[in-house]
Amino acid sequence: MSTFPVQIVERAALILTGSEILRAKVQESNLHPLASTLRALGISLERASIIPDDRALIAAEIRSLIRDYDVVFMSGGIGPTHDDVTLEAVADAHGVTAQVHPELRKLLEQVYQERLTAAHLRMGLVPTGADLVSLPEILWPTVVMGKVWILPGVPELFRMKLSVVRAYLRGPQSIVGRAAYTMMDEAELKPLLDEVVRDHPLVSVGSYPKWFDPTYKTKITFDGSNTDDVERALAALLCRLPAGEPQRTE
Amino acid sequence: MSTFPVQIVERAALILTGSEILRAKVQESNLHPLASTLRALGISLERASIIPDDRALIAAEIRSLIRDYDVVFMSGGIGPTHDDVTLEAVADAHGVTAQVHPELRKLLEQVYQERLTAAHLRMGLVPTGADLVSLPEILWPTVVMGKVWILPGVPELFRMKLSVVRAYLRGPQSIVGRAAYTMMDEAELKPLLDEVVRDHPLVSVGSYPKWFDPTYKTKITFDGSNTDDVERALAALLCRLPAGEPQRTE
Repeated sequence: MSTFPVQIVERAALILTGSEILRAKVQESNLHPLASTLRALGISLERASIIPDDRALIAAEIRSLIRDYDVVFMSGGIGPTHDDVTLEAVADAHGVTAQVHPELRKLLEQVYQERLTAAHLRMGLVPTGADLVSLPEILWPTVVMGKVWILPGVPELFRMKLSVVRAYLRGPQSIVGRAAYTMMDEAELKPLLDEVVRDHPLVSVGSYPKWFDPTYKTKITFDGSNTDDVERALAALLCRLPAGEPQRTE
Repeated sequence: MSTFPVQIVERAALILTGSEILRAKVQESNLHPLASTLRALGISLERASIIPDDRALIAAEIRSLIRDYDVVFMSGGIGPTHDDVTLEAVADAHGVTAQVHPELRKLLEQVYQERLTAAHLRMGLVPTGADLVSLPEILWPTVVMGKVWILPGVPELFRMKLSVVRAYLRGPQSIVGRAAYTMMDEAELKPLLDEVVRDHPLVSVGSYPKWFDPTYKTKITFDGSNTDDVERALAALLCRLPAGEPQRTE
Protein backbone atom coordinates (compact mmCIF):
# COMPACT_ATOMS: atom_id res chain seq x y z
CA MET A 1 0.00 0.00 0.00
CA SER A 2 1.06 3.62 0.26
CA THR A 3 4.37 4.89 1.51
CA PHE A 4 3.13 8.43 1.79
CA PRO A 5 5.39 10.62 3.94
CA VAL A 6 4.16 12.63 6.91
CA GLN A 7 3.99 16.27 5.81
CA ILE A 8 4.44 19.46 7.81
CA VAL A 9 1.93 22.09 6.66
CA GLU A 10 1.03 25.42 8.18
CA ARG A 11 -1.90 27.04 6.41
CA ALA A 12 -4.95 25.15 5.19
CA ALA A 13 -8.08 25.92 3.18
CA LEU A 14 -11.26 23.92 2.64
CA ILE A 15 -13.51 23.76 -0.43
CA LEU A 16 -16.97 22.36 0.28
CA THR A 17 -18.73 21.56 -2.98
CA GLY A 18 -22.39 21.53 -2.25
CA SER A 19 -25.23 22.98 -4.26
CA GLU A 20 -27.41 21.14 -1.73
CA ILE A 21 -25.92 23.22 1.10
CA LEU A 22 -26.33 26.54 -0.73
CA ARG A 23 -29.90 25.58 -1.63
CA ALA A 24 -30.68 24.81 2.03
CA LYS A 25 -31.46 21.14 1.36
CA VAL A 26 -28.90 19.91 3.87
CA GLN A 27 -27.01 21.61 6.66
CA GLU A 28 -23.27 21.85 6.30
CA SER A 29 -21.59 19.64 8.89
CA ASN A 30 -18.01 18.89 7.79
CA LEU A 31 -16.35 22.23 8.50
CA HIS A 32 -16.35 21.91 12.28
CA PRO A 33 -14.87 18.38 12.49
CA LEU A 34 -12.10 19.38 10.07
CA ALA A 35 -11.43 22.64 11.95
CA SER A 36 -11.15 20.72 15.26
CA THR A 37 -8.85 18.12 13.72
CA LEU A 38 -6.55 20.73 12.19
CA ARG A 39 -6.47 22.79 15.37
CA ALA A 40 -5.36 19.73 17.34
CA LEU A 41 -2.63 19.13 14.75
CA GLY A 42 -1.38 22.73 14.93
CA ILE A 43 -2.49 23.44 11.36
CA SER A 44 -4.20 26.78 10.81
CA LEU A 45 -7.45 26.58 8.83
CA GLU A 46 -7.61 29.99 7.15
CA ARG A 47 -10.50 29.82 4.71
CA ALA A 48 -13.49 27.74 3.74
CA SER A 49 -15.33 28.19 0.45
CA ILE A 50 -18.74 26.66 -0.18
CA ILE A 51 -19.41 26.55 -3.92
CA PRO A 52 -21.81 24.75 -6.30
CA ASP A 53 -21.12 21.39 -7.97
CA ASP A 54 -19.75 23.06 -11.10
CA ARG A 55 -16.57 21.64 -12.60
CA ALA A 56 -15.18 24.94 -13.93
CA LEU A 57 -15.98 26.84 -10.72
CA ILE A 58 -14.39 24.14 -8.56
CA ALA A 59 -11.27 24.01 -10.72
CA ALA A 60 -10.90 27.81 -10.56
CA GLU A 61 -11.29 27.76 -6.77
CA ILE A 62 -8.63 25.04 -6.44
CA ARG A 63 -6.20 26.91 -8.68
CA SER A 64 -6.67 30.05 -6.60
CA LEU A 65 -6.30 28.34 -3.21
CA ILE A 66 -3.26 26.17 -4.00
CA ARG A 67 -1.41 29.38 -4.80
CA ASP A 68 -2.06 30.78 -1.31
CA TYR A 69 -2.28 27.80 1.07
CA ASP A 70 -0.11 24.80 1.96
CA VAL A 71 -2.90 22.26 1.84
CA VAL A 72 -6.41 22.37 0.37
CA PHE A 73 -9.10 19.94 1.50
CA MET A 74 -12.04 19.10 -0.75
CA SER A 75 -15.31 17.75 0.62
CA GLY A 76 -18.02 16.39 -1.63
CA GLY A 77 -18.66 15.49 -5.24
CA ILE A 78 -16.86 12.14 -5.42
CA GLY A 79 -19.78 9.80 -6.08
CA PRO A 80 -20.77 8.30 -9.44
CA THR A 81 -23.51 10.68 -10.65
CA HIS A 82 -23.58 13.66 -13.03
CA ASP A 83 -23.19 16.19 -10.19
CA ASP A 84 -20.04 14.48 -8.85
CA VAL A 85 -17.28 16.39 -10.62
CA THR A 86 -14.62 16.93 -7.96
CA LEU A 87 -12.05 14.46 -9.32
CA GLU A 88 -12.27 15.93 -12.82
CA ALA A 89 -12.09 19.47 -11.40
CA VAL A 90 -8.95 18.63 -9.41
CA ALA A 91 -7.44 17.17 -12.59
CA ASP A 92 -8.42 20.30 -14.58
CA ALA A 93 -6.85 22.55 -11.94
CA HIS A 94 -3.56 20.66 -12.39
CA GLY A 95 -3.73 20.48 -16.18
CA VAL A 96 -3.99 16.68 -16.24
CA THR A 97 -6.75 14.16 -17.01
CA ALA A 98 -8.55 11.85 -14.59
CA GLN A 99 -8.36 8.10 -15.15
CA VAL A 100 -9.61 5.01 -13.36
CA HIS A 101 -6.78 3.94 -11.06
CA PRO A 102 -5.92 0.21 -11.29
CA GLU A 103 -5.85 -0.18 -7.51
CA LEU A 104 -9.30 1.42 -7.16
CA ARG A 105 -10.64 -0.62 -10.08
CA LYS A 106 -9.57 -3.76 -8.21
CA LEU A 107 -11.32 -2.58 -5.04
CA LEU A 108 -14.50 -1.75 -6.97
CA GLU A 109 -14.43 -5.18 -8.63
CA GLN A 110 -14.11 -6.81 -5.22
CA VAL A 111 -17.02 -4.82 -3.80
CA TYR A 112 -19.50 -4.92 -6.70
CA GLN A 113 -18.38 -8.11 -8.47
CA GLU A 114 -20.73 -8.96 -11.34
CA ARG A 115 -22.87 -5.88 -10.54
CA LEU A 116 -20.00 -3.53 -11.48
CA THR A 117 -21.08 -0.85 -13.99
CA ALA A 118 -19.43 2.08 -15.75
CA ALA A 119 -21.06 4.29 -13.13
CA HIS A 120 -19.30 2.44 -10.32
CA LEU A 121 -16.00 2.82 -12.16
CA ARG A 122 -16.41 6.61 -12.01
CA MET A 123 -15.67 6.23 -8.30
CA GLY A 124 -12.19 5.01 -9.26
CA LEU A 125 -11.29 8.19 -11.16
CA VAL A 126 -8.01 9.74 -10.03
CA PRO A 127 -6.13 12.73 -11.51
CA THR A 128 -2.97 11.55 -13.28
CA GLY A 129 -0.05 11.80 -10.87
CA ALA A 130 -2.14 11.67 -7.67
CA ASP A 131 -1.18 9.59 -4.65
CA LEU A 132 -3.43 7.05 -2.95
CA VAL A 133 -3.01 7.43 0.79
CA SER A 134 -4.10 4.55 2.98
CA LEU A 135 -4.44 3.40 6.54
CA PRO A 136 -4.73 -0.29 7.44
CA GLU A 137 -8.15 0.21 9.07
CA ILE A 138 -9.72 2.14 6.17
CA LEU A 139 -10.59 0.15 3.05
CA TRP A 140 -10.89 3.00 0.60
CA PRO A 141 -7.71 5.04 -0.05
CA THR A 142 -7.75 8.83 0.02
CA VAL A 143 -6.73 10.59 -3.19
CA VAL A 144 -4.12 13.32 -2.71
CA MET A 145 -3.10 15.44 -5.69
CA GLY A 146 -0.19 17.67 -4.76
CA LYS A 147 -1.57 20.00 -2.06
CA VAL A 148 -5.16 18.84 -2.59
CA TRP A 149 -6.74 16.22 -0.30
CA ILE A 150 -9.97 14.81 -1.69
CA LEU A 151 -12.42 13.85 1.06
CA PRO A 152 -16.02 12.63 0.81
CA GLY A 153 -19.07 14.84 1.38
CA VAL A 154 -21.15 12.28 3.32
CA PRO A 155 -20.56 13.41 6.93
CA GLU A 156 -20.03 9.92 8.40
CA LEU A 157 -17.41 9.09 5.77
CA PHE A 158 -15.80 12.53 6.04
CA ARG A 159 -15.26 12.04 9.77
CA MET A 160 -13.86 8.57 9.20
CA LYS A 161 -11.34 9.94 6.70
CA LEU A 162 -10.06 12.51 9.19
CA SER A 163 -7.99 9.72 10.70
CA VAL A 164 -5.98 9.71 7.46
CA VAL A 165 -5.41 13.46 7.84
CA ARG A 166 -4.31 12.89 11.44
CA ALA A 167 -1.91 10.15 10.33
CA TYR A 168 -0.13 12.07 7.58
CA LEU A 169 -0.30 15.81 8.32
CA ARG A 170 1.26 17.90 11.09
CA GLY A 171 1.45 21.61 11.85
CA PRO A 172 4.80 23.29 12.48
CA GLN A 173 3.93 23.69 16.16
CA SER A 174 0.94 22.97 18.35
CA ILE A 175 -1.59 25.69 19.14
CA VAL A 176 -2.32 26.49 22.78
CA GLY A 177 -5.66 28.01 23.69
CA ARG A 178 -7.05 29.55 26.89
CA ALA A 179 -10.29 31.43 27.50
CA ALA A 180 -11.94 33.63 30.11
CA TYR A 181 -15.70 34.11 30.54
CA THR A 182 -17.03 37.38 31.93
CA MET A 183 -20.32 39.14 32.65
CA MET A 184 -18.89 42.34 31.16
CA ASP A 185 -20.08 43.44 27.74
CA GLU A 186 -17.69 43.94 24.85
CA ALA A 187 -17.77 47.72 25.06
CA GLU A 188 -16.71 47.64 28.73
CA LEU A 189 -13.97 45.16 27.87
CA LYS A 190 -12.63 46.99 24.84
CA PRO A 191 -10.16 49.38 26.57
CA LEU A 192 -8.70 46.50 28.64
CA LEU A 193 -8.53 44.21 25.62
CA ASP A 194 -6.84 46.86 23.50
CA GLU A 195 -3.99 47.00 26.05
CA VAL A 196 -3.65 43.21 26.17
CA VAL A 197 -3.66 42.95 22.36
CA ARG A 198 -1.02 45.72 22.12
CA ASP A 199 1.27 44.12 24.73
CA HIS A 200 1.04 40.50 23.45
CA PRO A 201 1.54 40.58 19.70
CA LEU A 202 2.30 36.84 19.43
CA VAL A 203 -1.07 35.89 20.94
CA SER A 204 -4.28 36.02 18.95
CA VAL A 205 -7.03 37.48 21.15
CA GLY A 206 -10.69 36.94 20.29
CA SER A 207 -13.82 38.37 21.89
CA TYR A 208 -17.18 36.65 21.48
CA PRO A 209 -20.42 38.05 22.92
CA LYS A 210 -23.04 35.52 23.98
CA TRP A 211 -26.66 36.50 24.11
CA PHE A 212 -29.28 34.85 26.30
CA ASP A 213 -26.76 32.91 28.42
CA PRO A 214 -27.14 33.49 32.17
CA THR A 215 -23.55 32.39 32.99
CA TYR A 216 -21.55 34.92 30.96
CA LYS A 217 -21.81 37.74 28.41
CA THR A 218 -18.42 37.69 26.70
CA LYS A 219 -15.86 34.95 26.10
CA ILE A 220 -12.29 36.13 25.58
CA THR A 221 -9.95 33.67 23.87
CA PHE A 222 -6.15 33.55 23.70
CA ASP A 223 -4.42 31.44 21.05
CA GLY A 224 -0.72 31.07 20.34
CA SER A 225 2.02 28.58 19.68
CA ASN A 226 3.86 29.26 22.95
CA THR A 227 2.24 28.28 26.27
CA ASP A 228 4.03 30.99 28.27
CA ASP A 229 2.97 33.72 25.83
CA VAL A 230 -0.64 32.57 25.99
CA GLU A 231 -0.65 32.32 29.81
CA ARG A 232 0.90 35.78 30.12
CA ALA A 233 -1.74 37.31 27.84
CA LEU A 234 -4.53 35.64 29.84
CA ALA A 235 -2.97 36.85 33.12
CA ALA A 236 -2.69 40.37 31.68
CA LEU A 237 -6.43 40.41 31.09
CA LEU A 238 -7.33 38.81 34.43
CA CYS A 239 -5.35 41.39 36.43
CA ARG A 240 -7.28 44.17 34.66
CA LEU A 241 -10.74 42.74 35.39
CA PRO A 242 -12.79 44.11 38.31
CA ALA A 243 -13.50 42.13 41.50
CA GLY A 244 -15.71 39.08 40.94
CA GLU A 245 -14.47 38.55 37.39
CA PRO A 246 -13.88 36.37 35.47
CA GLN A 247 -16.80 34.01 35.95
CA ARG A 248 -14.50 31.15 34.91
CA THR A 249 -11.50 30.31 32.73
CA GLU A 250 -10.64 27.29 30.64
CA MET B 1 -36.96 56.21 8.96
CA SER B 2 -35.84 54.48 5.82
CA THR B 3 -37.57 54.58 2.47
CA PHE B 4 -35.47 51.78 1.07
CA PRO B 5 -36.92 50.28 -2.13
CA VAL B 6 -37.65 46.58 -2.57
CA GLN B 7 -34.91 45.17 -4.81
CA ILE B 8 -35.00 42.30 -7.29
CA VAL B 9 -31.74 40.32 -7.08
CA GLU B 10 -30.84 36.99 -8.64
CA ARG B 11 -27.44 35.76 -7.44
CA ALA B 12 -26.20 36.09 -3.86
CA ALA B 13 -22.99 35.39 -1.96
CA LEU B 14 -22.27 35.26 1.76
CA ILE B 15 -19.09 36.23 3.63
CA LEU B 16 -18.88 34.80 7.15
CA THR B 17 -16.09 36.51 9.06
CA GLY B 18 -15.12 34.20 11.84
CA SER B 19 -11.68 33.25 13.06
CA GLU B 20 -13.61 31.53 15.85
CA ILE B 21 -15.32 29.25 13.31
CA LEU B 22 -12.09 28.38 11.47
CA ARG B 23 -10.40 27.71 14.82
CA ALA B 24 -13.22 25.35 15.84
CA LYS B 25 -14.23 27.45 18.84
CA VAL B 26 -17.82 27.77 17.67
CA GLN B 27 -19.87 25.95 15.08
CA GLU B 28 -21.04 27.95 12.09
CA SER B 29 -24.82 28.35 12.23
CA ASN B 30 -25.87 31.28 10.04
CA LEU B 31 -25.41 29.80 6.58
CA HIS B 32 -28.42 27.48 6.71
CA PRO B 33 -30.98 30.07 7.90
CA LEU B 34 -29.81 32.51 5.20
CA ALA B 35 -29.86 29.79 2.53
CA SER B 36 -33.44 28.84 3.52
CA THR B 37 -34.57 32.45 3.51
CA LEU B 38 -33.05 33.16 0.10
CA ARG B 39 -34.45 29.97 -1.39
CA ALA B 40 -37.94 30.94 -0.25
CA LEU B 41 -37.45 34.37 -1.87
CA GLY B 42 -36.28 32.85 -5.16
CA ILE B 43 -32.76 34.24 -4.72
CA SER B 44 -29.94 31.87 -5.62
CA LEU B 45 -27.18 31.64 -2.99
CA GLU B 46 -24.13 30.74 -5.07
CA ARG B 47 -21.17 30.98 -2.72
CA ALA B 48 -20.24 31.28 0.93
CA SER B 49 -16.75 32.26 2.08
CA ILE B 50 -15.62 31.81 5.67
CA ILE B 51 -12.58 33.99 6.33
CA PRO B 52 -10.69 35.33 9.37
CA ASP B 53 -11.40 38.67 11.09
CA ASP B 54 -8.77 40.47 9.01
CA ARG B 55 -9.68 43.87 7.58
CA ALA B 56 -7.60 43.59 4.38
CA LEU B 57 -8.73 40.02 3.66
CA ILE B 58 -12.39 40.90 4.20
CA ALA B 59 -12.12 43.98 1.97
CA ALA B 60 -10.49 41.94 -0.80
CA GLU B 61 -13.21 39.29 -0.56
CA ILE B 62 -15.94 41.93 -0.77
CA ARG B 63 -14.33 43.58 -3.80
CA SER B 64 -14.11 40.22 -5.53
CA LEU B 65 -17.69 39.14 -4.77
CA ILE B 66 -19.47 42.40 -5.62
CA ARG B 67 -18.02 42.06 -9.12
CA ASP B 68 -19.67 38.67 -9.60
CA TYR B 69 -22.88 38.66 -7.54
CA ASP B 70 -25.98 40.85 -7.23
CA VAL B 71 -26.00 40.94 -3.45
CA VAL B 72 -23.36 40.07 -0.84
CA PHE B 73 -24.32 39.33 2.76
CA MET B 74 -21.81 39.81 5.58
CA SER B 75 -22.16 38.01 8.91
CA GLY B 76 -20.01 38.87 11.90
CA GLY B 77 -17.48 41.44 13.04
CA ILE B 78 -19.80 44.33 13.87
CA GLY B 79 -19.24 44.60 17.64
CA PRO B 80 -17.05 47.14 19.44
CA THR B 81 -13.78 45.21 19.98
CA HIS B 82 -10.46 45.09 18.12
CA ASP B 83 -11.48 42.00 16.10
CA ASP B 84 -14.68 43.66 14.82
CA VAL B 85 -13.53 45.15 11.52
CA THR B 86 -16.38 44.44 9.10
CA LEU B 87 -17.68 48.00 8.81
CA GLU B 88 -14.21 49.37 8.08
CA ALA B 89 -13.57 46.54 5.59
CA VAL B 90 -16.81 47.30 3.74
CA ALA B 91 -15.79 50.97 3.62
CA ASP B 92 -12.29 50.03 2.35
CA ALA B 93 -13.81 47.83 -0.37
CA HIS B 94 -15.80 50.82 -1.61
CA GLY B 95 -12.95 53.34 -1.28
CA VAL B 96 -14.72 55.39 1.42
CA THR B 97 -14.27 55.91 5.17
CA ALA B 98 -16.51 54.69 7.98
CA GLN B 99 -18.05 57.27 10.32
CA VAL B 100 -20.45 57.20 13.25
CA HIS B 101 -23.90 57.73 11.76
CA PRO B 102 -25.97 60.42 13.57
CA GLU B 103 -29.05 58.18 13.71
CA LEU B 104 -27.06 55.31 15.25
CA ARG B 105 -25.34 57.70 17.67
CA LYS B 106 -28.78 58.78 18.88
CA LEU B 107 -29.84 55.14 19.36
CA LEU B 108 -26.62 54.34 21.27
CA GLU B 109 -27.14 57.40 23.49
CA GLN B 110 -30.67 56.24 24.27
CA VAL B 111 -29.52 52.71 25.12
CA TYR B 112 -26.34 53.42 27.11
CA GLN B 113 -27.09 56.96 28.39
CA GLU B 114 -24.34 58.13 30.78
CA ARG B 115 -22.49 54.82 30.37
CA LEU B 116 -21.81 55.54 26.66
CA THR B 117 -18.12 55.13 25.76
CA ALA B 118 -16.00 55.47 22.63
CA ALA B 119 -16.16 51.66 22.36
CA HIS B 120 -19.96 51.76 22.21
CA LEU B 121 -19.77 54.41 19.50
CA ARG B 122 -17.79 51.99 17.32
CA MET B 123 -21.09 50.13 16.93
CA GLY B 124 -22.44 53.22 15.14
CA LEU B 125 -19.79 53.13 12.39
CA VAL B 126 -21.22 53.17 8.87
CA PRO B 127 -19.40 53.42 5.52
CA THR B 128 -19.98 56.84 3.96
CA GLY B 129 -22.89 56.59 1.55
CA ALA B 130 -24.49 53.52 3.12
CA ASP B 131 -28.24 53.17 3.71
CA LEU B 132 -29.85 52.34 7.04
CA VAL B 133 -32.67 49.89 6.39
CA SER B 134 -35.31 49.50 9.07
CA LEU B 135 -38.44 47.65 10.00
CA PRO B 136 -40.87 48.99 12.62
CA GLU B 137 -40.40 45.92 14.84
CA ILE B 138 -36.58 45.94 14.82
CA LEU B 139 -34.87 48.67 16.85
CA TRP B 140 -31.44 48.52 15.25
CA PRO B 141 -31.25 49.42 11.52
CA THR B 142 -29.38 47.21 9.06
CA VAL B 143 -26.50 48.85 7.20
CA VAL B 144 -26.57 48.32 3.42
CA MET B 145 -23.70 49.62 1.32
CA GLY B 146 -24.48 49.21 -2.36
CA LYS B 147 -24.77 45.45 -2.89
CA VAL B 148 -23.44 44.63 0.59
CA TRP B 149 -25.84 43.80 3.45
CA ILE B 150 -24.14 43.86 6.84
CA LEU B 151 -25.68 41.37 9.27
CA PRO B 152 -24.59 40.38 12.79
CA GLY B 153 -22.64 37.23 13.63
CA VAL B 154 -24.51 36.34 16.83
CA PRO B 155 -26.91 33.63 15.58
CA GLU B 156 -30.01 34.89 17.44
CA LEU B 157 -29.53 38.40 16.05
CA PHE B 158 -28.67 37.12 12.57
CA ARG B 159 -31.96 35.22 12.41
CA MET B 160 -33.88 38.25 13.66
CA LYS B 161 -32.35 40.39 10.91
CA LEU B 162 -33.45 37.96 8.20
CA SER B 163 -36.90 39.58 8.44
CA VAL B 164 -35.27 42.73 6.99
CA VAL B 165 -33.92 40.66 4.10
CA ARG B 166 -37.39 39.18 3.56
CA ALA B 167 -38.96 42.65 3.58
CA TYR B 168 -36.64 44.28 1.03
CA LEU B 169 -35.24 41.62 -1.32
CA ARG B 170 -36.93 39.44 -3.93
CA GLY B 171 -35.70 36.96 -6.51
CA PRO B 172 -36.73 37.27 -10.15
CA GLN B 173 -38.94 34.19 -9.81
CA SER B 174 -39.71 31.65 -7.14
CA ILE B 175 -37.86 28.33 -7.01
CA VAL B 176 -39.89 25.13 -7.06
CA GLY B 177 -38.40 21.98 -5.55
CA ARG B 178 -39.47 18.32 -5.57
CA ALA B 179 -37.62 15.23 -4.38
CA ALA B 180 -37.79 11.44 -4.63
CA TYR B 181 -36.28 8.99 -2.12
CA THR B 182 -35.12 5.59 -3.29
CA MET B 183 -33.39 2.47 -1.98
CA MET B 184 -31.25 2.37 -5.15
CA ASP B 185 -27.62 3.40 -4.90
CA GLU B 186 -26.17 6.23 -6.98
CA ALA B 187 -24.39 3.93 -9.40
CA GLU B 188 -27.65 2.12 -10.22
CA LEU B 189 -29.41 5.44 -10.64
CA LYS B 190 -26.76 7.09 -12.78
CA PRO B 191 -27.90 5.86 -16.26
CA LEU B 192 -31.51 6.86 -15.50
CA LEU B 193 -30.47 10.21 -14.06
CA ASP B 194 -28.26 10.98 -17.04
CA GLU B 195 -31.30 10.67 -19.34
CA VAL B 196 -33.44 12.87 -17.09
CA VAL B 197 -30.68 15.50 -16.85
CA ARG B 198 -30.21 15.46 -20.63
CA ASP B 199 -33.96 15.80 -21.38
CA HIS B 200 -34.72 18.53 -18.80
CA PRO B 201 -32.06 21.20 -19.15
CA LEU B 202 -34.06 23.86 -17.26
CA VAL B 203 -34.28 21.72 -14.13
CA SER B 204 -31.37 21.32 -11.75
CA VAL B 205 -31.13 17.67 -10.68
CA GLY B 206 -29.22 16.67 -7.54
CA SER B 207 -28.39 13.25 -6.17
CA TYR B 208 -27.54 12.76 -2.50
CA PRO B 209 -26.56 9.42 -0.99
CA LYS B 210 -27.54 8.82 2.62
CA TRP B 211 -25.63 6.34 4.71
CA PHE B 212 -27.01 4.54 7.73
CA ASP B 213 -30.64 5.50 7.05
CA PRO B 214 -33.02 2.53 6.88
CA THR B 215 -35.69 4.41 4.88
CA TYR B 216 -33.72 5.34 1.75
CA LYS B 217 -30.28 5.28 0.13
CA THR B 218 -30.43 8.16 -2.35
CA LYS B 219 -32.44 11.36 -2.47
CA ILE B 220 -32.95 12.85 -5.93
CA THR B 221 -33.90 16.53 -6.04
CA PHE B 222 -35.42 18.63 -8.82
CA ASP B 223 -35.23 22.43 -8.69
CA GLY B 224 -36.39 24.96 -11.22
CA SER B 225 -38.31 28.18 -11.65
CA ASN B 226 -41.21 26.58 -13.54
CA THR B 227 -43.53 24.14 -11.74
CA ASP B 228 -44.42 22.23 -14.90
CA ASP B 229 -40.76 21.75 -15.85
CA VAL B 230 -39.94 20.46 -12.38
CA GLU B 231 -42.94 18.10 -12.28
CA ARG B 232 -42.08 16.73 -15.74
CA ALA B 233 -38.48 16.03 -14.69
CA LEU B 234 -39.66 14.24 -11.53
CA ALA B 235 -42.17 12.21 -13.56
CA ALA B 236 -39.43 11.32 -16.07
CA LEU B 237 -37.40 9.79 -13.26
CA LEU B 238 -40.35 8.04 -11.61
CA CYS B 239 -41.37 6.29 -14.82
CA ARG B 240 -37.82 4.94 -15.16
CA LEU B 241 -37.67 3.50 -11.63
CA PRO B 242 -38.31 -0.22 -11.04
CA ALA B 243 -41.41 -1.55 -9.28
CA GLY B 244 -41.59 -0.61 -5.60
CA GLU B 245 -39.72 2.63 -6.11
CA PRO B 246 -39.61 5.41 -5.09
CA GLN B 247 -39.95 4.96 -1.34
CA ARG B 248 -41.57 8.41 -1.17
CA THR B 249 -41.64 11.80 -2.85
CA GLU B 250 -41.95 15.29 -1.47
